[in-house]
Amino acid sequence: MQRHFDQDLADIKQKLLTMGGLAEAAVTNAIKALLNRDDDLARKVKEDDNVLDRFEIEMDEMGIALLALKAPLASDLRLITVAMKISADLERVGDEATTIARRALELSQEPQLKPYVDIPRMADLGLSMLKDGLDSFVNGAVPKALAVIPRDKEVDAINKQLQRELVSYMIERPSTITRCLNLMVISKSLERIADHATNIAEEVVYLYEGRDIRHSGKSGAPQEP
Amino acid sequence: MQRHFDQDLADIKQKLLTMGGLAEAAVTNAIKALLNRDDDLARKVKEDDNVLDRFEIEMDEMGIALLALKAPLASDLRLITVAMKISADLERVGDEATTIARRALELSQEPQLKPYVDIPRMADLGLSMLKDGLDSFVNGAVPKALAVIPRDKEVDAINKQLQRELVSYMIERPSTITRCLNLMVISKSLERIADHATNIAEEVVYLYEGRDIRHSGKSGAPQEP
Repeated sequence: MQRHFDQDLADIKQKLLTMGGLAEAAVTNAIKALLNRDDDLARKVKEDDNVLDRFEIEMDEMGIALLALKAPLASDLRLITVAMKISADLERVGDEATTIARRALELSQEPQLKPYVDIPRMADLGLSMLKDGLDSFVNGAVPKALAVIPRDKEVDAINKQLQRELVSYMIERPSTITRCLNLMVISKSLERIADHATNIAEEVVYLYEGRDIRHSGKSGAPQEP
Repeated sequence: MQRHFDQDLADIKQKLLTMGGLAEAAVTNAIKALLNRDDDLARKVKEDDNVLDRFEIEMDEMGIALLALKAPLASDLRLITVAMKISADLERVGDEATTIARRALELSQEPQLKPYVDIPRMADLGLSMLKDGLDSFVNGAVPKALAVIPRDKEVDAINKQLQRELVSYMIERPSTITRCLNLMVISKSLERIADHATNIAEEVVYLYEGRDIRHSGKSGAPQEP
């Protein structure tokens, strides 16, 4: 029985890593679609999102079944509940990638406003935070998870500055308003992806140390805009 | 032992209703602050948000403790996991109310653009969805929960139309850009509040019927913008 349970827990971990790979690919492709004005790739990101939706439901089913059948304790219990939470975050990363892809499709209908600098930088930061969060989940590397959390502030700062720049741009050149709005939504989506990576890192700390550090000041509070 | 467990489950339900009351009050007050240009009330909404944050953490602690100590089965297990999910939704409703309050504070610095019609209507719809979702949670009223879900489309439609109107407005009168942007964020926040109410209704269906109807077409898919 114990052997089967270990296999179940390994399956959950594996499923979460598969979801992590899909979420990272969705973000990478959405940004690639934006930068290369690649409408086919943008449409593919939108179409593929239902895979992550389905995985989230399956993860919840697996988690609830294990809770019911095995009545796990302590760290196994935390692993299951944390996996369900991380899975929800990854599903939402997929939703944000879909939003980016939708906006990329609108942006490719008009000339490009100016070279994109901040957006790929935010995407790289968010993706590396996601990757480190998932790595620390697999390896039990709490210091690596803790190091993810302050990086959220960097993404927040870039987003804030870009939002301000885009507002000035709109005011100076009203003909750019729709393009600026699309870029504002994309920037906000990237900021939210970093928030989800932060959530994942916080979940990993909880999983391995049993302490809940949400809203404790160790984490980046939700930022506006 | 069973008697204590029933008391634990009753405590969880009670805590969730308290959270629901706080989330509804936050939204109501944020909109009231916007409509009455009441900066003190807006600041109060922002300050009070940490109460919901703390409740979310406490709910997770209670849920995990019950899962560990009581190894509940079937409907009790679903009640605990659903309560944890609904609690997360309510905490995010509080975040959206904070966003609305922040934008209300910015809007009160400038003359009002025009009478607000759609925004209070969206708020009323979202609040009634929240209320019905929580009522159906308490009463096991699955038809009432199912009736919440299609109403999300109505809120989505109002949001979409308002976003379009605001874009036209900005293009015609660039001096209104910052005000329009604040209103766009508020409209989007209200749309998200209705999404959370929809999630809650879906969770209630799962709780009482054991079927997961997310992403099934019965629910409103996440909408853009």
